Amino acid sequence: MKSYFRKEIDAIAGYTPGEQPKVANLIKLNTNENPYPPSPEVLKVLRNFDPARLRRYPDPTADALRDLFAVSVNMQRDNVIIGNGSDDLLTMIFRAFTSPELPVAVFEPTYSLYPVLAAMQGAPVIKILLDQNTFAYPADAVKQAGNANLLIITRPNAPTGNCADKELVKEICANFDGIVLIDEAYSDFASDNCAEFAAEFDNVLVMRTFSKGSSMAGLRLGYAFGSKVLISGLMKLKDSYNVDMLSQELAKANFQDAAYRKECSEKIIADREKLAADLTELGFNVVPSQANFLFAAPPDGDGAGCFAALREEAVIVRYFPGEVTGKYLRITIGTPEENARLLEVLKKRFA
Amino acid sequence: MKSYFRKEIDAIAGYTPGEQPKVANLIKLNTNENPYPPSPEVLKVLRNFDPARLRRYPDPTADALRDLFAVSVNMQRDNVIIGNGSDDLLTMIFRAFTSPELPVAVFEPTYSLYPVLAAMQGAPVIKILLDQNTFAYPADAVKQAGNANLLIITRPNAPTGNCADKELVKEICANFDGIVLIDEAYSDFASDNCAEFAAEFDNVLVMRTFSKGSSMAGLRLGYAFGSKVLISGLMKLKDSYNVDMLSQELAKANFQDAAYRKECSEKIIADREKLAADLTELGFNVVPSQANFLFAAPPDGDGAGCFAALREEAVIVRYFPGEVTGKYLRITIGTPEENARLLEVLKKRFA
Repeated sequence: MKSYFRKEIDAIAGYTPGEQPKVANLIKLNTNENPYPPSPEVLKVLRNFDPARLRRYPDPTADALRDLFAVSVNMQRDNVIIGNGSDDLLTMIFRAFTSPELPVAVFEPTYSLYPVLAAMQGAPVIKILLDQNTFAYPADAVKQAGNANLLIITRPNAPTGNCADKELVKEICANFDGIVLIDEAYSDFASDNCAEFAAEFDNVLVMRTFSKGSSMAGLRLGYAFGSKVLISGLMKLKDSYNVDMLSQELAKANFQDAAYRKECSEKIIADREKLAADLTELGFNVVPSQANFLFAAPPDGDGAGCFAALREEAVIVRYFPGEVTGKYLRITIGTPEENARLLEVLKKRFA
Repeated sequence: MKSYFRKEIDAIAGYTPGEQPKVANLIKLNTNENPYPPSPEVLKVLRNFDPARLRRYPDPTADALRDLFAVSVNMQRDNVIIGNGSDDLLTMIFRAFTSPELPVAVFEPTYSLYPVLAAMQGAPVIKILLDQNTFAYPADAVKQAGNANLLIITRPNAPTGNCADKELVKEICANFDGIVLIDEAYSDFASDNCAEFAAEFDNVLVMRTFSKGSSMAGLRLGYAFGSKVLISGLMKLKDSYNVDMLSQELAKANFQDAAYRKECSEKIIADREKLAADLTELGFNVVPSQANFLFAAPPDGDGAGCFAALREEAVIVRYFPGEVTGKYLRITIGTPEENARLLEVLKKRFA
C-alpha cells in the first residue's frame, strides 16, 4: 500500500523512551524516577474518591491546579497551562512555535526528545554545542541560535545534570528574538530556578513536571507558566480534556504537601553528593549535578561496556550513544540501598 | 510584542468544548456523558491501588489494554493504539495525515472539533453535505472527497445521531484513495458497528472512546485499531507515556465487565426510544438516533430559544448555531428522572 503519512512522519523513527522493564528485583536507575512514594495525602484522596464521578468530563483547564501553581510562582491562573505530563506541553509548544520556516535551537547534548518533536513539524534544529568536557554553556548562545523561533534551555540540563548560569539565562531571555522555553523538570533538586523570568519577559515559558521531584511519573502531570498571551495561544492547541479528573485531585493533594516533597528532595540531594564522591573515588569523572541523577564517565571511558556490565547484575542505568555522551552513564539517584548496590557492582569492575 | 506563534495558530480561536458547569442540581444533558456510573469493579481496583506505584512511569503503550481491545475485535496487539481520550488520537491522526497539501474530508454537520484540528495543521477541509432534512449520506461521497488524504465518518454521527449505511461505508473504504477514519464514539448505542473494516482494509482506522458507553469521560481513554502499518506510524506521534498508570488499570477493570456495560447501554437505548416518542408527541422533529442523544427540532424551529428556556430551568442541553443545526437541540439521554424533568419543562413551552 502507498503511504498516506506526511513525509515528515515517514522519515522519522520516533522517540525511544527509557526502558520500563517488567522484571522483579531490578535496581532501576534509568529514567530519573523518584525513589520515594508521593505524599501520604495522596492515599487519602485515592481512598475517598467516588468512581461514579468518572462518568463526567473533568475540568478542561484544571483550574484548581492552575491556581495552586500560579500562587507558588507569584502569577495568576491565566499565566498557567496544565499538560498530560510535560511531554504533552512540549508537543503543544513545538506545534505552536516550530515549522519548516521556524527552526528550534537546542543545546547539545540535551533531552533527546526535542529533535524528534522538531522532525514531526519538519522544523530545522540548530544545535548549540556545550563544552565537550565541562558541558558549560557558550556565552554567544543567542548569536548561535540564529533565526530560530524557539530556544530551549533545560535547567538543570539532561543528561548532564549541570545548570546554565542564571545570569546567562537572563541575558538570553532579554536578547533572543523568539520564545525561550526553560525546561525545569529537575529544578526541585537545584539550588535555584528561573521562575521569575516567566513574569519578567513576555517571550519566556517555564515548564515543570510531577514526574521527578513530585514522585508522580505514573500520573502524567506537567505545567508551564508565562505571559497570558503565550498561555492563551497554547490553550488553543491543548486537547480539551487533557488531564483526567483523578490525576487532577491526586496531584493537588501531593502539591499541597510541600514539606514532604522538600524532605524527599533533600534526602536525594544528600545521597547524590555521597554517590558522586564514591564514584569519584572509584575513578569516575562525575559532572557536578543539580538534578536527581549523575552523568558520570567510568575510568576507562567505556560507557557502553559499563552499562552492559551493570545490566548483567540487574542494575539498569541509561546510556546515550555518541562521541561525547557515549563515554558516560546517566545514573538516577535511588534509595541509599540501591545506590550501595550500584557501587558494589562497579567496585567489582574498577576497584 | 510580535507574535511568535505559527500563523495557523494565530488564525484560529480554538475549540469550545461543551460546558462543564460547577453548579449543583443541574440537569446536565449537554456533553453525552453516561447517566450511570462505571462498573463496580472499578471501585475495587481504586481501593486497592498502592499510590507508591505512581512514582514509576506507566507502561508507555498500555499493552494490557491493547491486548483486551485487540481480542474484542479479533485483531492483535500491534493493531491497536491507546489515546488519552480519543481527542489525543484525533490529534495524532490529523498530524499524521493532514497538511496544507493533504486535505481532510468531513461530512456536514458533524463533530465540530475536526475542522479546528485541520486548521492547526493548515489543512483544507472538504465538506460533504448530508441531506438537510434527513441527514442521509450522499452516494457519491468518495467523488466529493476529491483529493482529500483523510476522510472521517462519524458513526453514529454527532450531533445528528443517525448512521451512515454500512454498505456505503464499505464502499467508501474500498474506493477512497486515502485514510478512512470511522469514529465510533457512540457505537455502544448502535445496532451495528464497522470494526471488521479495520481488518479488511489497509487504509481504515476505527476509533472508540471510554467517555460514552463506558461511563469514564473523567478518565480520558480512547483507542483506535487498523493495519499494523497505520498503527506503527501513529505510534511515532504518540507522547511516550500518554495514558497514566491508574487510568490503565481502572479502564481495564471496567472493560472486562462487559455485562454491566451492556446493561447500562440497553437502559439508555430504551430511554432514548421513550424520549424520542415523547418529544415527537410534543411536536418535535426527532432524527432517528443510534446514539445516546437525540437531535430534535422544537415545533417552532427555534433551537436557540428552546435552549435558553431550558437553561432558565437549570436543564442544560447543547445548541449548535447554524442555518441547519440552529433549528435543533442535541439532548443527551439522562436517567429516567432527568429525562422526565426535561419533558416537564418542554411541556410548559409547547403543550
